[in-house]
Amino acid sequence: MTRILLLGAGRSASSLIQYLLGYAAAEDWNLTIADVNPAPLTVLLAPHAERAQAVAFEISQQERLSELVAAHDIVISMLPALFHPVVAKACLAHGKHLATASYATDEIRAFDAAARAAGLTILMECGLDPGLDHMSALPVIEEVRAAGGQLTAFKSYCGGLMAPDSEGDNPWRYKFTWNPRNVVLAGQGTAKYIEHGHPRFIPYQHLFRRVDTLTVPGYGAFEGYANRDSLSYRPLYGLETIPTMLRGTLRRPGYCGAWAALVGLGLTDDSYHLGNAAEQPWTDVLESFLPPAAANQSMPERTAAHLGLAPDSSEMQRLAWLGLFGLEPVGLPDATPAQLLEKLLTTKWQLQPHDHDMIVMQHLFDYELAGVRHRRTSSLVVIGDDAVHTAMAKTVGLPLGMAVRRLARGQVAHRGVVIPTHADLYEPILAELAADYGISFVESEETLG
Amino acid sequence: MTRILLLGAGRSASSLIQYLLGYAAAEDWNLTIADVNPAPLTVLLAPHAERAQAVAFEISQQERLSELVAAHDIVISMLPALFHPVVAKACLAHGKHLATASYATDEIRAFDAAARAAGLTILMECGLDPGLDHMSALPVIEEVRAAGGQLTAFKSYCGGLMAPDSEGDNPWRYKFTWNPRNVVLAGQGTAKYIEHGHPRFIPYQHLFRRVDTLTVPGYGAFEGYANRDSLSYRPLYGLETIPTMLRGTLRRPGYCGAWAALVGLGLTDDSYHLGNAAEQPWTDVLESFLPPAAANQSMPERTAAHLGLAPDSSEMQRLAWLGLFGLEPVGLPDATPAQLLEKLLTTKWQLQPHDHDMIVMQHLFDYELAGVRHRRTSSLVVIGDDAVHTAMAKTVGLPLGMAVRRLARGQVAHRGVVIPTHADLYEPILAELAADYGISFVESEETLG
Repeated sequence: MTRILLLGAGRSASSLIQYLLGYAAAEDWNLTIADVNPAPLTVLLAPHAERAQAVAFEISQQERLSELVAAHDIVISMLPALFHPVVAKACLAHGKHLATASYATDEIRAFDAAARAAGLTILMECGLDPGLDHMSALPVIEEVRAAGGQLTAFKSYCGGLMAPDSEGDNPWRYKFTWNPRNVVLAGQGTAKYIEHGHPRFIPYQHLFRRVDTLTVPGYGAFEGYANRDSLSYRPLYGLETIPTMLRGTLRRPGYCGAWAALVGLGLTDDSYHLGNAAEQPWTDVLESFLPPAAANQSMPERTAAHLGLAPDSSEMQRLAWLGLFGLEPVGLPDATPAQLLEKLLTTKWQLQPHDHDMIVMQHLFDYELAGVRHRRTSSLVVIGDDAVHTAMAKTVGLPLGMAVRRLARGQVAHRGVVIPTHADLYEPILAELAADYGISFVESEETLG
Repeated sequence: MTRILLLGAGRSASSLIQYLLGYAAAEDWNLTIADVNPAPLTVLLAPHAERAQAVAFEISQQERLSELVAAHDIVISMLPALFHPVVAKACLAHGKHLATASYATDEIRAFDAAARAAGLTILMECGLDPGLDHMSALPVIEEVRAAGGQLTAFKSYCGGLMAPDSEGDNPWRYKFTWNPRNVVLAGQGTAKYIEHGHPRFIPYQHLFRRVDTLTVPGYGAFEGYANRDSLSYRPLYGLETIPTMLRGTLRRPGYCGAWAALVGLGLTDDSYHLGNAAEQPWTDVLESFLPPAAANQSMPERTAAHLGLAPDSSEMQRLAWLGLFGLEPVGLPDATPAQLLEKLLTTKWQLQPHDHDMIVMQHLFDYELAGVRHRRTSSLVVIGDDAVHTAMAKTVGLPLGMAVRRLARGQVAHRGVVIPTHADLYEPILAELAADYGISFVESEETLG
């Protein structure tokens, strides 16, 4: 029997738990799910009482963590990423494997030598992004290489969005399927990528104005803005000298321009407190960010003039839809602009029980083969089943579950800190996702002029 | 005899040292100047050998600091402001007064109770800005109050600039008379002020585009951008409920718009390293910050288009004058954008031996008296004598020296952390500045429509 410990049973763990329970009998697993709030798991686990149990656990309980890790063979952490180093330390202390869907940070990579020495695997980046992005990009990169081709550009985009039937009348075509705070603060700092051999830096205030437009067959147009650091991916993919490499985040067209307006107003700033009252209406917050009024100008007119937008532009329509010009109270005293914006968006962009989310990923590979320039486009769309088994939960949790299943079977030979850039890891996972869940990339190929 | 210890003899201490030496005999002082590099002081101090000596000292030498403080009666710190808490602690430990030209930060204010209990004075903000700004604004505020008037607006601006005869052909009409790094990073964060009762916040990317225009009789036009925090000055001046209050920094017209272009490009960002070679030409740095080129566009054309400027605009002329579009190597490897810009500006904006600097300060007071609206304008211009006794050194050092003279004479009764907002402090200093140095404010008064 393999004893598996899952730390953290938050919203994005639902499909992972279902996967683990589904294989528990066949694989002879015993599963412990440790969470701050284990009660809601009771009903779910009842039919699996012999194979699974939920226990109460908080990451601050160091001794409890040590006991739990000691009593299992493999640990999966779905805790917030900042806690992974603590968990990894406990796994090393007790000689247990660890698997997560989070980035292999420098702090985690520092455990590499110790894990190798102990014959342990710390399997990182096994979710969606990071995770499926590596797993799906590398087969194409390897294929081009094997054919003798030369990659000249790799652009890769991913976004957690709404299925077309759930966008409703929301002109942003976006709702929160992920940590709202991270969405509000997204892109702060400077985005770095490389284009035609030139390093490129995009300061935050320009980031949402410099977007690429993409099309995904059957799902229409999207726009992508550059992620913070595309350069660090080059060594992971063996693309150290590729002239163009960009990783980006997808939104529906128009989102980025309107978000740039929020950035331009200063509403995403989290560095200072406004000293406002909770009862302050939104229009007064906006007043604070505008130059003084000329006579007879309305708030929307002043805002449009300040931002250099037309009063009837799609950006201004999106701002108005959020209620920025209205009398709704902001609801938080002495908050940062970003905190107020997050609170407003949390009500406006709230997922409804009947909503379906949608994950979109697209890779664009430009390569030269025998003197001809080609572009391969590889696209994935995953729609959520319901409010529990969201596309986000499926695409984050299923690859991780599949990786853990292989680890439990002894089919993962790599030791140390490992990410799924190895064919023996990603090939079976891609095959299982396609066969059992219909999760697969659609590819197309064209010749460039 | 009063033993005075001056810590730090940097460029802005020259006029303070001259002042202290000038009064040493008459006031029966003995002066110790402690600096990392005491050698250059030897010639200066030679004629005063009985009254003054220079010693080597570094702030990291805690025991040496303790010995020096113990052996004196009054300590003046011209060290960088971050070291003042360490000095204040030593002064408290040995029961000595302290005087500086720096802000009374929260860290310094924390010593207030202990200083009062020990009967000690920690005299802060006795230089130019902070210093002369308080000393010159408060008499007007008190006068309006005493007459029964009501202040409705107080705006106060200060700038360290070049005298008209020293601006040369530099279109920025600016050279460094102060820490270049602070000039490059100026305004980062969000500026806060209050206008007609509305709190106003200006995000960094808008700061240099929202300027006021001022005129100083005989010296022409200036533009002022808002300082980071104008609100904290309200209690200092007893103006808690004033509807409009702004503090700003002065530049010559056109500077701010061109600086906004540097901000917009991302060249003032100090948060990440570019990974560049020291030999990289400036035009390549600029390339990194621009969107990809359309056919046949020159770098200046692309830059102008990116920033929404006309190619022949005054902003673009200032950027070109700096050499941003040229092949000059940046000269620093793997630097932040701000570090590269600082290095470039340090050569372009270097003070020449024959240059004269100029300090400009202007206060605008709007008040209502007997139903009539008035505006009092109070302006100060100080021109530097030469490259040693700059206007900056005079206006920072002389008020501080005068405050210390009064402290040494027992004419400062205030204990604890004190700033010169008391008439018994500022009145004699303003009188001495006017009588002995011709440093005085020119006032004008008009009735508003």
